[in-house]
Amino acid sequence: MVDKRSGRQSAEAAEQTKKSILCAAADLFSQKGFDKVSVREISEVAGVSHGLIRHHFGSKEQIWHRICDEIHLYIQGLMETLVEEADPNLPPNERLFEMMIRLMASLLVDPRPSRLAASAMGSKEELFDYLYDLTGKTEKAFAMELERAQAAGYLTDSSMEELKWFCCLFSDAPATLRPLLSQTYGPEQDKALLEHWRLFARLLAPMLGIDKSAIPEPANLRELMVCGTCEPDHVV
Amino acid sequence: MVDKRSGRQSAEAAEQTKKSILCAAADLFSQKGFDKVSVREISEVAGVSHGLIRHHFGSKEQIWHRICDEIHLYIQGLMETLVEEADPNLPPNERLFEMMIRLMASLLVDPRPSRLAASAMGSKEELFDYLYDLTGKTEKAFAMELERAQAAGYLTDSSMEELKWFCCLFSDAPATLRPLLSQTYGPEQDKALLEHWRLFARLLAPMLGIDKSAIPEPANLRELMVCGTCEPDHVV
Repeated sequence: MVDKRSGRQSAEAAEQTKKSILCAAADLFSQKGFDKVSVREISEVAGVSHGLIRHHFGSKEQIWHRICDEIHLYIQGLMETLVEEADPNLPPNERLFEMMIRLMASLLVDPRPSRLAASAMGSKEELFDYLYDLTGKTEKAFAMELERAQAAGYLTDSSMEELKWFCCLFSDAPATLRPLLSQTYGPEQDKALLEHWRLFARLLAPMLGIDKSAIPEPANLRELMVCGTCEPDHVV
Repeated sequence: MVDKRSGRQSAEAAEQTKKSILCAAADLFSQKGFDKVSVREISEVAGVSHGLIRHHFGSKEQIWHRICDEIHLYIQGLMETLVEEADPNLPPNERLFEMMIRLMASLLVDPRPSRLAASAMGSKEELFDYLYDLTGKTEKAFAMELERAQAAGYLTDSSMEELKWFCCLFSDAPATLRPLLSQTYGPEQDKALLEHWRLFARLLAPMLGIDKSAIPEPANLRELMVCGTCEPDHVV
């Protein structure tokens, strides 16, 4: 019994160690970019030995792959929840609008997925290739919503790929162009992100035939976040 | 007479040398970021001695300042030309729309000013402070156009600062998120930039009450560039 118990504990402990390593690596990659982070640095921040990281993951690239897997799961979960939580009685353009502005709120409040993506793009092509979901699985739920909106005559010029691009450039800019964000909307980060989100909503609204008066006016972006992601327990 | 002539020549030669140094530095800064470029590297690319760079500019920061001065002149010239070339008989919303989509075309075709700005933002605060035009002199001509459009009831929610932010995030994204741009619009860079510009135009049009059918359909972005900037003789 003692054996079993300690066996379970050590399996749990191993999972916890892996998670600490991934968390530390995700933070470092998003702050400094993949290239500038060493396995040694990850081991220092995670508080584990260099050897243990090698044991669990092998190389820095493999840590990256695991983080990308987590990002895919996170974004997929986010999108599925958005689809589930959106009012099914809304017309397709209003549904898609609601989902996209809430998605943007989540991406702006927790910028780590965006930062990791930007870090991949500034680095080796293979890193980006692994990150980029070529199967389109991540966006599947959203793609159907776009199709419905297009059938109703909205966004007929746009593809799912372009909507993704539009979302990525808006979610990336506040971190990449941080000093300019402060100059534009003031030094208070939360307020600046809210104003940036408002610009996104105002640009998107006419594309989906949404009246300006129907754009929500949250006091802060957390109000719009997807349930369950507010207190993230996920790695990235 | 020989002395005078050679005196003039050497003044010209000195100007040419300074220009080569600034060109080399601007290219390096925009490719690698300010921090990762050394004066030694600039001297190698420019084909001049390290000492000559010190003689002409002093420090790397001072080279940066000179490049920023050139960017200010370039952007100011671009904006003034856009204002001059826009049809004065157009209503203010159409005028502002034309100027902004042409400005974006110029910024996308020659991304060096955007790259330098992004390089400053990823580096020390002082670099950004010097780059950012706090006097607003650069945008002066545009600000008046915005006021006119606002008086006619357009973009009443936006400030000059926000328009600038909107332009910067669109001009920066293709370089910062290059692999994603290719995934979105295909590997051919010119075509991808054109599609990206079209997205900008389509988002801006409804904000200025421009009908979709009135958005120009250039075969390539050079058609929309400001005269005189097509074959740039400027440093950045």
